[in-house]
Amino acid sequence: MTVGVLGGGQLGRMLGLAGLPLGLRFRFLDTDGDAPARQVGDLHVGQYDDPVALDAFAAGLDAVTFEFENVPADAVRRIARSLPVQPRAEALETVQDRLSEKRLFRSLDIPTPPFHPVTHAAEVAAALEVTGCPAVLKTRRFGYDGKGQWIVRTKADLAGIMEELPKQPDSLLLEGFVQFDREVSLIAARARSGEVVFYPLVENRHEGGILRLSLAPAPGATPALQSLAQRHVLRIMEALDYVGVLAVEFFQCGDMLLANEVAPRVHNSGHWTIEGAETSQFENHLRAILGLPLGSAAARGLSTMWNVLGAAPPAKAVLAVPGAHLHLYDKEPRSGRKIGHITVCADTPENLEESLARIRAAAPQS
Amino acid sequence: MTVGVLGGGQLGRMLGLAGLPLGLRFRFLDTDGDAPARQVGDLHVGQYDDPVALDAFAAGLDAVTFEFENVPADAVRRIARSLPVQPRAEALETVQDRLSEKRLFRSLDIPTPPFHPVTHAAEVAAALEVTGCPAVLKTRRFGYDGKGQWIVRTKADLAGIMEELPKQPDSLLLEGFVQFDREVSLIAARARSGEVVFYPLVENRHEGGILRLSLAPAPGATPALQSLAQRHVLRIMEALDYVGVLAVEFFQCGDMLLANEVAPRVHNSGHWTIEGAETSQFENHLRAILGLPLGSAAARGLSTMWNVLGAAPPAKAVLAVPGAHLHLYDKEPRSGRKIGHITVCADTPENLEESLARIRAAAPQS
Repeated sequence: MTVGVLGGGQLGRMLGLAGLPLGLRFRFLDTDGDAPARQVGDLHVGQYDDPVALDAFAAGLDAVTFEFENVPADAVRRIARSLPVQPRAEALETVQDRLSEKRLFRSLDIPTPPFHPVTHAAEVAAALEVTGCPAVLKTRRFGYDGKGQWIVRTKADLAGIMEELPKQPDSLLLEGFVQFDREVSLIAARARSGEVVFYPLVENRHEGGILRLSLAPAPGATPALQSLAQRHVLRIMEALDYVGVLAVEFFQCGDMLLANEVAPRVHNSGHWTIEGAETSQFENHLRAILGLPLGSAAARGLSTMWNVLGAAPPAKAVLAVPGAHLHLYDKEPRSGRKIGHITVCADTPENLEESLARIRAAAPQS
Repeated sequence: MTVGVLGGGQLGRMLGLAGLPLGLRFRFLDTDGDAPARQVGDLHVGQYDDPVALDAFAAGLDAVTFEFENVPADAVRRIARSLPVQPRAEALETVQDRLSEKRLFRSLDIPTPPFHPVTHAAEVAAALEVTGCPAVLKTRRFGYDGKGQWIVRTKADLAGIMEELPKQPDSLLLEGFVQFDREVSLIAARARSGEVVFYPLVENRHEGGILRLSLAPAPGATPALQSLAQRHVLRIMEALDYVGVLAVEFFQCGDMLLANEVAPRVHNSGHWTIEGAETSQFENHLRAILGLPLGSAAARGLSTMWNVLGAAPPAKAVLAVPGAHLHLYDKEPRSGRKIGHITVCADTPENLEESLARIRAAAPQS
């Protein structure tokens, strides 16, 4: 059985590594001939909006999914005419647009920061009157890793930010700034049968808008918080008739969770599941889209996932650290680029902290 | 960095799956264009004794190893002239021949069943006078999975067995039959620095000469037994100046261990380490040959590895079993052929037994 994946980045690569042991074969579509997934399946190089490339990619596949949320929903729709594609194009489309995503949260009674759709400076200024400063101006589409976001600290910032925006911007969203305690995310897998498994909540720490590390399970997360997050995510998955793995990022404020965004795919904050959970998010995504039973999402001990940004750390130093597992994506080093991750597993917080300190020392980041 | 592997079977495939996350790339040499490793690296198709094929395979590689112990030692020697190859050709050569292997055990004071090198019927008959019946007649080379072995139950069996032997047999070995309690194996990895890590002893159960299942750690294995096995294996590794993963199969008789054979490679009885140990045997083999620090070989809970022989079991049934992990090798089903394995992990013997009963029911074997 051959699974097609739209996108051939590290997420596709890790889907392949999880699926080959299940006897699956893979084909990837990516715009880049050097995409990291090329080592674990056939790589088709083409544009996602090219019907010829899409049809050639889809020919002979058994099932299709995507690992890249900026794939045009129409590409998914085109392939879905002839093949089972999960998640559905409609689910992808809803969360590709921050406005329809936020409206979904609101319609499901899931708390989210206040938001105002805006298109030009006058509208932004008007919305700022409601939210007050600081606020966050975001493009409705194609944001990732802190890109497509600007913090408006004072009204005076606005002119500069509007100039910085792309010439023909997507419509924008102004969000009220939330003073949160931390960001947490919940990853879940939903099967075609409607069965859902939830991973434990993870705490995410960012630097410069890029995920720096994830702690799993999130320290101090109570069963009540886990349960609250699960109820929110279940409602989202059911509303979208979602099949596959999905991640929801939340701002935690005390015992309250504000939904920030949905990633309709396997997620960076779930990489720890490869060693740290009974079944990885990658395997569970494949199980879900192929109509197989889901595996347990329970954690095995404690894990911290540390993103490798810029350049690869010396493998000798990393692998000498107890409980460290190195994952490199076969990407060219470039300042700030995610080229791998390291998961550190331990049985106690003390051992975890000690190993993590050694990783920090071994893997200075550019 | 590209690692070359002589042999592209399931062991090569699993080496690739373990090494890709480390940022390694792979090239395999195999006589079969459908070899299972072709999904995780480049596959060169050629004969191991063809210098042209060997040189083309080796060109541009950074390091070479083997996953198939019947690779000619001269092939390893040829490549080792220009590239780092581990384990060494001399280590391979010693254990390829059951006679030099047994003599190694004897020279290291490692108990082993009585053995007699023999070449023709008259010599076998003479040796039988010493060992008594039953005894086991083995070819000195190229035996695996019970092939190249004949049990001589009575002297009258001998004529029939000698006829069954290949026309120009390798020299033979007659071994005294050992009434053992069980077979156990110890897998260890030795680094270029001389550092060694030992996995826990595993109990192996065979059917028809083929490994049926491995229980890890071996139930009831005492620390004294583990320590005895480690001393034996350490002596073997040091005598061979061995670098990489090696497995030694022992017959356990009470608290005594008789060395049966050495596999100079990753081993079927170590497949459980993928989920069941801190670091898999595949990753530790790669770490060892590349001069990287070894990872912990400690078990994570209890595991049983169940070989999938003949045909693939229904994935739905297997994946519904708690703690079950399916590994298929992308091989054509054929009666008795090892086409995959299933590892069942659990925290208690009761849970393990319950899951295993469900696997037995789901995976009837041909």
